[in-house]
Amino acid sequence: MDRKTPGRRFRTIGDGSGFGRDDTLYPEELQLALRNRGMPLEGLRYRITPSGIHYLLVHYDIPEVDANAWRLAVGGLVATPLHLTLDDIRQRPGRTLAVTMECAGNGRALSSPRRISQPWLVEAIGTAEWTGTPLRGVLEEAGLARQAVEVVFTGLDEGVEGNVVQRYQRSLAVGEALRDEVLLAYEMNGLPLEPQHGYPLRLLVPGWYGMASVKWLDRIEVTAEPFHGFQMMRVYRYAQSADELGEPVTLIRVRALMIPPGIPDFMTRTRLLRAGRVMLAGRAWAGRLAVARVEVSADGGATWSDARLGDPVSPHAWREWTFEWDAQPGSCTLCVRATDSAGNVQPAEQEWNSGGYGNNSVQRVDVIVE
Amino acid sequence: MDRKTPGRRFRTIGDGSGFGRDDTLYPEELQLALRNRGMPLEGLRYRITPSGIHYLLVHYDIPEVDANAWRLAVGGLVATPLHLTLDDIRQRPGRTLAVTMECAGNGRALSSPRRISQPWLVEAIGTAEWTGTPLRGVLEEAGLARQAVEVVFTGLDEGVEGNVVQRYQRSLAVGEALRDEVLLAYEMNGLPLEPQHGYPLRLLVPGWYGMASVKWLDRIEVTAEPFHGFQMMRVYRYAQSADELGEPVTLIRVRALMIPPGIPDFMTRTRLLRAGRVMLAGRAWAGRLAVARVEVSADGGATWSDARLGDPVSPHAWREWTFEWDAQPGSCTLCVRATDSAGNVQPAEQEWNSGGYGNNSVQRVDVIVE
Repeated sequence: MDRKTPGRRFRTIGDGSGFGRDDTLYPEELQLALRNRGMPLEGLRYRITPSGIHYLLVHYDIPEVDANAWRLAVGGLVATPLHLTLDDIRQRPGRTLAVTMECAGNGRALSSPRRISQPWLVEAIGTAEWTGTPLRGVLEEAGLARQAVEVVFTGLDEGVEGNVVQRYQRSLAVGEALRDEVLLAYEMNGLPLEPQHGYPLRLLVPGWYGMASVKWLDRIEVTAEPFHGFQMMRVYRYAQSADELGEPVTLIRVRALMIPPGIPDFMTRTRLLRAGRVMLAGRAWAGRLAVARVEVSADGGATWSDARLGDPVSPHAWREWTFEWDAQPGSCTLCVRATDSAGNVQPAEQEWNSGGYGNNSVQRVDVIVE
Repeated sequence: MDRKTPGRRFRTIGDGSGFGRDDTLYPEELQLALRNRGMPLEGLRYRITPSGIHYLLVHYDIPEVDANAWRLAVGGLVATPLHLTLDDIRQRPGRTLAVTMECAGNGRALSSPRRISQPWLVEAIGTAEWTGTPLRGVLEEAGLARQAVEVVFTGLDEGVEGNVVQRYQRSLAVGEALRDEVLLAYEMNGLPLEPQHGYPLRLLVPGWYGMASVKWLDRIEVTAEPFHGFQMMRVYRYAQSADELGEPVTLIRVRALMIPPGIPDFMTRTRLLRAGRVMLAGRAWAGRLAVARVEVSADGGATWSDARLGDPVSPHAWREWTFEWDAQPGSCTLCVRATDSAGNVQPAEQEWNSGGYGNNSVQRVDVIVE
């Protein structure tokens, strides 16, 4: 499917290293930031993110799909290839799951040097109620061959990346694809998917960073070999340079975020609030693990106090935290950090990787207390 | 209501001039671009923009509103002050209008030097079907006093701008406020407003740039004097410097945009397509005027050909245009420009103003034809 574009004909950005200088962004990064969208952090107040503020990353264009003509092809190493209509899929057993999703590149713009790509700060998150049918049932109906090793998912979105013309494609090991919570989803928050979220059907892989949840599904192929497509080998790897393959990016790392308290300054987003008792609150999540602890600092990370934890919204979604803070007049930097059930704590400074993936460094919120 | 923050305590951005250098963006501009959101340009294919990709600009935070406790206060120079519940408003005569809305700052990041603020390129647009009750009926029920000159709208959103603590407030002259198409809107595309679009109730002023359509309405006050609030006098003015008052920004200027053809390169968004007949398409709008003409150029604006015009989606919304293009191998820059019914044509180069408002310069789309 991949087709090289003849020669390097797309504009080079910056000095050609692929990395940007600190404190200035390139217009191409802005262009991506205006197409893709983060969740405004006050959106952390909602258990379930309103659809229109859920984060969104689209590699190429949102494709136009006629759902009446659309079919999902299920093939490769299966006993019975399937061609399913949207109605076929909607008539299968349905399940609704609240799932916290995060982009693997969340926090990229905080790393130094910064990979030139979608320049997320910390807002590439959201929690929605997704309705669909378990992928497992569809794969079992098709009948996996004994030699099956991976399942490859191909979207209808097409573009050029690294001078390779491609459809967006990702794979999962068979064991991951057969997990109960992996859905073929056709509804978000009780309504048919909007086009930008994968209409008419998308994959949903709870616990994984968002790149696994292929949108605008076109076909599913079962293979006897690991899939080596662009989105598996060239990007979404924890590597130190373009020459190194590195480990694949998979599950979401532990993170807590805070609803910025008080009111914002329009341009700097620095917060202004009155002295006295302030109830700080936010959400925390840890991929497939549980959140074990959330701590808050009111002195830029020098000292920490435990926050109170609420119940998770679902086994696949964030949980609320709250902390009563006695705000004293002056300027300070609020921080929050979470620890997962395996003992991983969010770092103050992120370990660097070339693609800017898996950043879960501590959020910092500048406030002025009157 | 306005309260000065004591001294200049918010971070200065860049060299303090308020303007950015060409070709590099400041992190604070990125922060705004990730909160606010444009419409991905392929969204021009939809007559009515899916809610989740409609452009969005929020000056401060999205406020949290309990619709059960919420009341709309209508006061000032009226015979009978009103306090309306959401049900009161929903039970009034309803009207649904398709309206094209655009941010007054759309195109700001294309001007040079560029005002440091929300750095739009060309994507701050969208067309939705808004349902509400005409403002006129509510004002007539309250009974405007003979001395009434303006109507002031106050939102629930609060923040700091130019070191002034404020709620978002805008006014309209009485004649504008009484126009048939001005709505108190509670639904967008057939559903209750999502929080980010003004839940539970927003003003909708078709034909005007978006700053007039105050979200999260709290109160409406009829006054005998023109309102001189921050959002009327300090911003949203066509001025050459901060010292000059300038003319107010009001109605949307004529503009056409194109669905970028072919497929995108991820990072540069340059388009790749095959030689041959290509149907170019997009939408054009002109505020309160009609679109009289749309022209397309395939040579960066040197020569122009007329596009075919479709019918407007409504008297307040964009109309489609199409143009059959014979794409020849090589690189080129596609352009589109519209002319309104008063003879105004989109400029190739924008006349500069300090705030970066009302930019309607010609869109340029780089393509590579194979």
